[in-house]
Amino acid sequence: MPTAADPDIVHGVHSEVGRLRTVLVCRPGLAHQRLTPSNSAALLFDDVMWVENAQRDHADFVTQMVDRGVHVLELHDLLAETMAIPAARAWLLDRKIVPNEVGLGVIVDTRGYLDTLDAATLAEYLIGGLATGDLPAEFRSAALTMARESRGAQEFLMPPLPNTLYTRDTTCWLYGGLTMNPLFWPARRGETLLMKAIYEFHPSFAGSQVWWGDPEADWGQATFEGGDIMPVGNGVVLMGMSERTSRQAITQVAANLFAQGAAERVVVAGLPKLRAAMHLDTVFTFADRDVVTLYPRIMDGVHTFTLLPGDAPGGLDVIDEGEGTFVKVVTEALGLSGMRVIETGGDTYASERQQWDSGNNAVALEPGVVITYDRNTLTNALLRDAGIEVVEIVGAELGRGRGGGHCMTCPIARDPVDF
Amino acid sequence: MPTAADPDIVHGVHSEVGRLRTVLVCRPGLAHQRLTPSNSAALLFDDVMWVENAQRDHADFVTQMVDRGVHVLELHDLLAETMAIPAARAWLLDRKIVPNEVGLGVIVDTRGYLDTLDAATLAEYLIGGLATGDLPAEFRSAALTMARESRGAQEFLMPPLPNTLYTRDTTCWLYGGLTMNPLFWPARRGETLLMKAIYEFHPSFAGSQVWWGDPEADWGQATFEGGDIMPVGNGVVLMGMSERTSRQAITQVAANLFAQGAAERVVVAGLPKLRAAMHLDTVFTFADRDVVTLYPRIMDGVHTFTLLPGDAPGGLDVIDEGEGTFVKVVTEALGLSGMRVIETGGDTYASERQQWDSGNNAVALEPGVVITYDRNTLTNALLRDAGIEVVEIVGAELGRGRGGGHCMTCPIARDPVDF
Amino acid sequence: MPTAADPDIVHGVHSEVGRLRTVLVCRPGLAHQRLTPSNSAALLFDDVMWVENAQRDHADFVTQMVDRGVHVLELHDLLAETMAIPAARAWLLDRKIVPNEVGLGVIVDTRGYLDTLDAATLAEYLIGGLATGDLPAEFRSAALTMARESRGAQEFLMPPLPNTLYTRDTTCWLYGGLTMNPLFWPARRGETLLMKAIYEFHPSFAGSQVWWGDPEADWGQATFEGGDIMPVGNGVVLMGMSERTSRQAITQVAANLFAQGAAERVVVAGLPKLRAAMHLDTVFTFADRDVVTLYPRIMDGVHTFTLLPGDAPGGLDVIDEGEGTFVKVVTEALGLSGMRVIETGGDTYASERQQWDSGNNAVALEPGVVITYDRNTLTNALLRDAGIEVVEIVGAELGRGRGGGHCMTCPIARDPVDF
Amino acid sequence: MPTAADPDIVHGVHSEVGRLRTVLVCRPGLAHQRLTPSNSAALLFDDVMWVENAQRDHADFVTQMVDRGVHVLELHDLLAETMAIPAARAWLLDRKIVPNEVGLGVIVDTRGYLDTLDAATLAEYLIGGLATGDLPAEFRSAALTMARESRGAQEFLMPPLPNTLYTRDTTCWLYGGLTMNPLFWPARRGETLLMKAIYEFHPSFAGSQVWWGDPEADWGQATFEGGDIMPVGNGVVLMGMSERTSRQAITQVAANLFAQGAAERVVVAGLPKLRAAMHLDTVFTFADRDVVTLYPRIMDGVHTFTLLPGDAPGGLDVIDEGEGTFVKVVTEALGLSGMRVIETGGDTYASERQQWDSGNNAVALEPGVVITYDRNTLTNALLRDAGIEVVEIVGAELGRGRGGGHCMTCPIARDPVDF
Repeated sequence: MPTAADPDIVHGVHSEVGRLRTVLVCRPGLAHQRLTPSNSAALLFDDVMWVENAQRDHADFVTQMVDRGVHVLELHDLLAETMAIPAARAWLLDRKIVPNEVGLGVIVDTRGYLDTLDAATLAEYLIGGLATGDLPAEFRSAALTMARESRGAQEFLMPPLPNTLYTRDTTCWLYGGLTMNPLFWPARRGETLLMKAIYEFHPSFAGSQVWWGDPEADWGQATFEGGDIMPVGNGVVLMGMSERTSRQAITQVAANLFAQGAAERVVVAGLPKLRAAMHLDTVFTFADRDVVTLYPRIMDGVHTFTLLPGDAPGGLDVIDEGEGTFVKVVTEALGLSGMRVIETGGDTYASERQQWDSGNNAVALEPGVVITYDRNTLTNALLRDAGIEVVEIVGAELGRGRGGGHCMTCPIARDPVDF
Repeated sequence: MPTAADPDIVHGVHSEVGRLRTVLVCRPGLAHQRLTPSNSAALLFDDVMWVENAQRDHADFVTQMVDRGVHVLELHDLLAETMAIPAARAWLLDRKIVPNEVGLGVIVDTRGYLDTLDAATLAEYLIGGLATGDLPAEFRSAALTMARESRGAQEFLMPPLPNTLYTRDTTCWLYGGLTMNPLFWPARRGETLLMKAIYEFHPSFAGSQVWWGDPEADWGQATFEGGDIMPVGNGVVLMGMSERTSRQAITQVAANLFAQGAAERVVVAGLPKLRAAMHLDTVFTFADRDVVTLYPRIMDGVHTFTLLPGDAPGGLDVIDEGEGTFVKVVTEALGLSGMRVIETGGDTYASERQQWDSGNNAVALEPGVVITYDRNTLTNALLRDAGIEVVEIVGAELGRGRGGGHCMTCPIARDPVDF
Repeated sequence: MPTAADPDIVHGVHSEVGRLRTVLVCRPGLAHQRLTPSNSAALLFDDVMWVENAQRDHADFVTQMVDRGVHVLELHDLLAETMAIPAARAWLLDRKIVPNEVGLGVIVDTRGYLDTLDAATLAEYLIGGLATGDLPAEFRSAALTMARESRGAQEFLMPPLPNTLYTRDTTCWLYGGLTMNPLFWPARRGETLLMKAIYEFHPSFAGSQVWWGDPEADWGQATFEGGDIMPVGNGVVLMGMSERTSRQAITQVAANLFAQGAAERVVVAGLPKLRAAMHLDTVFTFADRDVVTLYPRIMDGVHTFTLLPGDAPGGLDVIDEGEGTFVKVVTEALGLSGMRVIETGGDTYASERQQWDSGNNAVALEPGVVITYDRNTLTNALLRDAGIEVVEIVGAELGRGRGGGHCMTCPIARDPVDF
Repeated sequence: MPTAADPDIVHGVHSEVGRLRTVLVCRPGLAHQRLTPSNSAALLFDDVMWVENAQRDHADFVTQMVDRGVHVLELHDLLAETMAIPAARAWLLDRKIVPNEVGLGVIVDTRGYLDTLDAATLAEYLIGGLATGDLPAEFRSAALTMARESRGAQEFLMPPLPNTLYTRDTTCWLYGGLTMNPLFWPARRGETLLMKAIYEFHPSFAGSQVWWGDPEADWGQATFEGGDIMPVGNGVVLMGMSERTSRQAITQVAANLFAQGAAERVVVAGLPKLRAAMHLDTVFTFADRDVVTLYPRIMDGVHTFTLLPGDAPGGLDVIDEGEGTFVKVVTEALGLSGMRVIETGGDTYASERQQWDSGNNAVALEPGVVITYDRNTLTNALLRDAGIEVVEIVGAELGRGRGGGHCMTCPIARDPVDF
């Protein structure tokens, strides 16, 4: 797998289904070895994971994409390359190893130990977390005993970030620039700072256009996750207003995109606040320029709004499109004459199971070619019946954090499609 | 009730049981009328509250203190007085009515409406929350519809802060200065900004010495709540290391107090992370200079540490005192020859019930005189047997957020005691 | 309070609002002293209770009824009178102190100890539970140690039955006979056996007509609770099909009532399966012959069915009345020209709070006179505006198991009303 | 796979590790297709399952056993053979299709439809559940509409029994006879009646010696599950006293075994009441006559009792062996000079994960040969280091109900071992 971006590919994501050229993924690793029945809920996983098998399945997922010409970047690798740059390492550790996170008394030892590590090992701990037990004897002071006593998340000097597996959420390329997202759950907030280190220092990424977001600022109620965001083309961006992506963020990002000329219209899907529908892409994704797969039990209740540049306060015009109109509004926004809709397959039991197992979480490699989990056999069959080429990957372990191929990919370069 | 501090009383809290001279409370109000079975857990209340009765019981609680010569300040009143100062009103609303909290599109209308309100009404909404339905018709735009759709906490343009009832937690006077505490739960974070407005602008409070904390900064894992903190005198501060008060904060505050000469020793109680023992003062309080009431099932398992000024990194020496030593370590730190311990009363059922109902949450008005809830009849009887004067208040409604007299009081001026 | 039924009153309940002549209640007691934060959820209470205060409030509730001429019977008293009959004592203990409940090895000692008790003390333990620690030293064998080790509900040799407070549920008089109900939650199942002992042996009750139900049989999915059942008169019985009262029981009881000529029509309210709407009487009760108080957020979604005697298998004809028709169907079944509906009072917050606090749980003493909790001030005001006389009782402690006046009363004799 | 027991093998289980001759399993099927995110917790599964893959993995598990000479029986097959016997079919349906379970009004149609089915299809529905939607149009009456409205478990006319996968629990062969177990969770109770049909009517099983238990009786608090029970040989039976296997049952079974001369000693492991340690075999199993694998974090806290025939009431002598003595007491009971203990492998994270993933749930095929899940790589390595032959099976889907090879097997014939 190449460990640096291809300099000949200009970064930018211009559609949901155009040819995928460069994508960022994150392989399972140390962070997932930290998952236990006791802490998995706090780390947003429904179950522990067999990490070796998850790694094998993830490697196969990457191979499928590479074999089809996608340039796949991996987060541990990118972060290791970044940490090999002394200024980047200092910048990141100066922000991670601070009294508010590590606690006085153990900072000097923690930083001292991390300074002994090579770039790849450091990257592994940055993603995988640093437990008090990871510090070698020569870095253990009396203060560390107190750290061990204050259990819970605090037993880590740096918390594990197992949800980096779902690279989709942390940053979003929207046409020619990106957002650095303030994530909803505290357990995920550390992810964005790692991405900022890469975008500030890694030669393939430094200088990228950032539309909105900065992990060093406090965003309050304004939380934003890439699983809710789709730059579908034609100047349109879809945004799920969900438990995790708030109106406060959506309106800010929309206003920023409009002000910078990056988009012309935002279509907002007002989702119920349920774990089963945590992101728009868990209930609605594109398989081709005019083909979507969706879970009707949720999507039928979506309340849709259109945001346009306007003179109202905040620079936004808000159009209330009512309930049950989402597909119609999207179709019109794209200038399509119609949309083919593939609903989650099976009877009432099976369709609920398929949706839960990321059956609607397809990611397109090019128009009409998607990657999905093997276990969604009924939905996959319906996609094939509709003429979609379905590339299956193994979901036994990877899906335990409730994410599929769409969640596990952050497109960096994707072609536009014609409408 | 006087609505301003007595200028003849110098602020400062020099013990847990010396004569209480000035105290801050917060009466139940609009914030508690917002509590429903659906949202009460998110707002950290175990049940809804009959607000009129809670107000009556709280008024009686205040009267008991006033009758014994305590100068009682009330938060709505202080905040109203502060909001009557134009610069203070602008300062606070500039920080509350921002895109990250209210969302673009509705900011102008929200601020517009709040600007029409008198200071007392504004104070009521600042504590009680502003629901989308509170905006009069002339302040409703299309964007408000989207706000109503994004339910949950977001249905409030300003969230209610019902836990202001527990003034103990938000700020702590520790000897001659105070801390402005970063609270653990997001649902409480807004409280500290209100206190900062008062401490910045209210003439009775402006210019106070602040040892640590600022609600405009991001404190990460460093959270600190007054229910865990006791300036017991003799230069000693007790700190519960709990779910809510973290090692990261404790070590910072200790180092700040030592560096500023405000304290000489911090005794840390490593509490289990349980709701029943959420703060040190839910399982351990003082009733006299050498009398404590405690819940043995929790306190017997506490792991104690002593922090002293030192040369180790961070400026702290950490002494591991082991388990089961807390009372002994505190006794020695105070220079006492012994401590009388009153355990929560009753058999195994009753003592668990009494602790849950704040049976150990006594607040002293002077040495040997405490306020407790009437419902803790067994523990109250034991206190009286030990020669303590017990002033009872009604706990039927006030206790539903799991706090008693100690939690509902923030001492502003309290005398030292001799040891 | 009289401890025996008035021989001049014929038992039978012929309406929901006719003059209440004889009623069964159960005062708070030992069972509620067993409630702790650890076990209260398993025992179906939301919080622990201050038993002394609950007893005071319950006594006042009884006094209000006695003062209006109601003959009030109390469960502890009735059970004590029953246990004073040797055959009854033997019958009940032979069924309670068995290997399947108490365990081999401790049976002899448990029965031995209970045999030493007077009737009143035995009744108190039968309702309040017998903990392993209650056995005196001379009744403790090695086998008791094993009982103490197997914690949870097992630490009781007889489980406490705190939900006897809600006498409404355990047995229902429907016109001239009664049902002995198989209750939904295992934590309540023991209640019905106590009632059978009374109905088999107590001279005021022996020989009563039983329509259906027997606590010595296994009823499987057929569970039935009086809070869902209302013999409204005119040969009609209303039955809530809820989490706790199942179709399997409703159809059996209906068929039995029809076959025995006890009723002519059953109207079934298909309730959502929610704790807030656990029984029909938590969201719908009568205040007068043509006045009901209800919680619209739940009642609007009720799916109604009418059951009539018929030739279909099972002897029932089922008519699907659709959604949102409940009040209309009930009005027609009673032969009324109209029904006045009083919705739970207050705005969206207050009405949800009032319903939760049993605001719709009124019990009528005669047409137009109801008892409700004091805390439901808004709903009470609406009832008074509609001409209803509202007698208020104190709900601070009594309501913590989520029940009001209707739940706490089991009418034994109530007059019919004219329609 | 043979579908009938080998007539040359005498049924009886005489050890935990002797040669396994005949075993009962149950393949995944329709019951698991009913699992959804909404109902899986109620049906005791942590997640939904990809049934096709679970079936493939289960088939491989069976093949591994068959290849080593084990005679493997499958529950669907046995039940189908039983249902082919008219008297057995009538016996079972007369007990399943009753008003208490199916409800009046739909019984005739339900029984009518089931009577049209061939034996294999009927067996599939008996295990897999019968949904209201499964009834063909000609069997749908008005009463069925009411059944559909009363949701939850009631939407099934016969509930699915997905935990039949864990055949270990429902019946236990203990030396020359068996127990028919009253299971703890209502969701599993239906399993035992199916087994009784087989043991009453199937020619290979009719006439078996039953020590204790009958699914047609009500057992109250006396619940008993095979995962807690181990007939280890030497006249000894180990019993875990857990959330699911109660003292009330243990003492009865012990007394019955002693009275019938079936065993001489019962060693009771008093387990904590935790889901992670739901049965003794989730934290402790045998790999050879003197080799066990265990999870020390749980087993170290076990309180052990020995039960012996005696003159005390109930016919049992109870010896309190104290805490931390379980392995020692078992070793002595077996007359071994020592026991080799293999603890769950890996660091604090990994060992908690391995235990959760059934790492201690080995089932022996013969002394020193066990089947375990592939995902427990660390524990498997330790077993191999100790000279145990480990046969791995795929656990990705099968383990989602928290059970491994030991749980999925009910030995019917197993040789003794020498001690």
